[in-house]
Amino acid sequence: MAEEKARLSIAEIRDIATDACLACGASAAAAKSLVEATLSAALLGRPEVGFPHFIDYLHSLLEGRIDGKAQPRIQNPLPAFIHSDAKGGIAQLGFDLAFEDLVKRGRTFGVAIFSQRNSYTAGELGYYVRRLAGHGLVSMAVANAHALMAAAVGGKPVFGTNPLAFGAPLPAPHAPLVIDQAASATAFVKVVRAAAENVAIPEGWATDEAGEPTTDPTKAILGALLPFGGYKGANIALLVEVLSAGLSGAAWSLDAGNFRSGNEPPNVGLTVIAIAPAAVDPSFAVRSADHFRRLEELGVHTPGRRARRGSLDNAEVIEIDARLLDDIMTFMPS
Amino acid sequence: MAEEKARLSIAEIRDIATDACLACGASAAAAKSLVEATLSAALLGRPEVGFPHFIDYLHSLLEGRIDGKAQPRIQNPLPAFIHSDAKGGIAQLGFDLAFEDLVKRGRTFGVAIFSQRNSYTAGELGYYVRRLAGHGLVSMAVANAHALMAAAVGGKPVFGTNPLAFGAPLPAPHAPLVIDQAASATAFVKVVRAAAENVAIPEGWATDEAGEPTTDPTKAILGALLPFGGYKGANIALLVEVLSAGLSGAAWSLDAGNFRSGNEPPNVGLTVIAIAPAAVDPSFAVRSADHFRRLEELGVHTPGRRARRGSLDNAEVIEIDARLLDDIMTFMPS
Repeated sequence: MAEEKARLSIAEIRDIATDACLACGASAAAAKSLVEATLSAALLGRPEVGFPHFIDYLHSLLEGRIDGKAQPRIQNPLPAFIHSDAKGGIAQLGFDLAFEDLVKRGRTFGVAIFSQRNSYTAGELGYYVRRLAGHGLVSMAVANAHALMAAAVGGKPVFGTNPLAFGAPLPAPHAPLVIDQAASATAFVKVVRAAAENVAIPEGWATDEAGEPTTDPTKAILGALLPFGGYKGANIALLVEVLSAGLSGAAWSLDAGNFRSGNEPPNVGLTVIAIAPAAVDPSFAVRSADHFRRLEELGVHTPGRRARRGSLDNAEVIEIDARLLDDIMTFMPS
Repeated sequence: MAEEKARLSIAEIRDIATDACLACGASAAAAKSLVEATLSAALLGRPEVGFPHFIDYLHSLLEGRIDGKAQPRIQNPLPAFIHSDAKGGIAQLGFDLAFEDLVKRGRTFGVAIFSQRNSYTAGELGYYVRRLAGHGLVSMAVANAHALMAAAVGGKPVFGTNPLAFGAPLPAPHAPLVIDQAASATAFVKVVRAAAENVAIPEGWATDEAGEPTTDPTKAILGALLPFGGYKGANIALLVEVLSAGLSGAAWSLDAGNFRSGNEPPNVGLTVIAIAPAAVDPSFAVRSADHFRRLEELGVHTPGRRARRGSLDNAEVIEIDARLLDDIMTFMPS
């Protein structure tokens, strides 16, 4: 079904979204971090986790799952290790506060790591690696979330959808390589949508409450998502869990709060590793682009590379679902 | 079928394997690196890539795919970045030469990276992360190999089986957490074995030469392996390719030599990232073990953790297939 679209300039939507954040109790800094990440997802990354997901943030600010005034505590326990405690705030603010330093330390030492505990869920994970790729760095980002996914058929939910993102710089006119994928076979929202539309879900996506495979989305919502690719996908979820929650000291997925209900911050983890390819070869990006062109000729898709590149011009017009815009407007000061 | 086993002390098999390496033209240092990695796979890791794979190394030394006398050139372009050019030798020698320094730099800076170009295939990838876990470091290792795997049905081989390994230290009596898995749905050797035994392979393992799915192993050998978990597994292979070959400057899988035929080194890449969890929390290993116990109680397998821990006692007896031992003996000086 075609949905009605509203057309706004980037300056306009930025102002509206910022005002909505402020009205919901975000600090100016948190509002800026969240709105820029949302615009990046909408225009350079995955629009479905841009403004549609922004609504979750507004509700969570109002309902206590995000502390909009939280001031991350950022420390540097070792020269190439940046640690952040988000203190119940959004993940993007701690990352923004550390970003310049992460880039500098990545370039200076060859590799640097940012590991953050106790934030709201990370949003579009591709955002973090896309930004680092814009500064010439190869990077990997991982984040956990409250348990929604079993390790296998028959199991209870023990992992979040535990996404992993990977980015690498490419020369203009290409956008960077950006891989951004959940460890689950599908996103939870797709199951919710199937339930709303009363259609079956494919086998392999989820189990019911008893741990049995199901194609009924209403049963799947009470059960568990399944990993992509069987036990190997479950191992990726475990890797993500250890690197994000374990390393940062965040809540394990089993203990994390739900990001859509309740009044407590999820307190989950985000870890980003930034690597300087120029340490070995200043022509890394060109060499990679040449190789990806060969892969593309052989029919292999290299994600992100064909997306749009570059910065966001204030005057540029973006389209947004009219209903979504209305929803955002309801959070505005009257 | 039960195979006849030979029983030897570790000291005996170490001497036999070392003499076989030397007889095939390996330097003393290369022989030591290869034999210790093989013993580690056999006793602490994955025995199927221990001595059975050791035979591949001996053939490759004799046939020019490994330069047994190669002296890796190891550099330190940036403080936390170690780069190695294996110069056509085995991957394990460069890693051994850099190992102490990698551990030291990982602990000093919080994270350090080892990236190596132009080696023979990496062997058991869990070996690299298991050793680092033994020194309290969390790590990830990736390696490419000559193209055997398509990105999807209908494609040509463009990636190696491109394994990824992940390790994390756990307190005694546990062995470390070790994930070690190919990006392919199955190992090439399993297809070869199915062909030898004249049995069908499962759907989803491979395609024939025309890119069509096949369950006939003889057709699969001429075709391509398939990734685990569809496009997400193919993306993992791409991540591995960029981090191992791209970052190190090794041959892309498309350009790499076959490790079982021809007379040229494969010149592939290996990258290992080592992270110091103690930077944030000295109790990381204990906290992880506690969580893994909870996961285990919920039926979730945490790989490696139940394996045996510790060092290899010279007097200890190991069992090895009698035929395999005979094969190794044929390489000995007469």
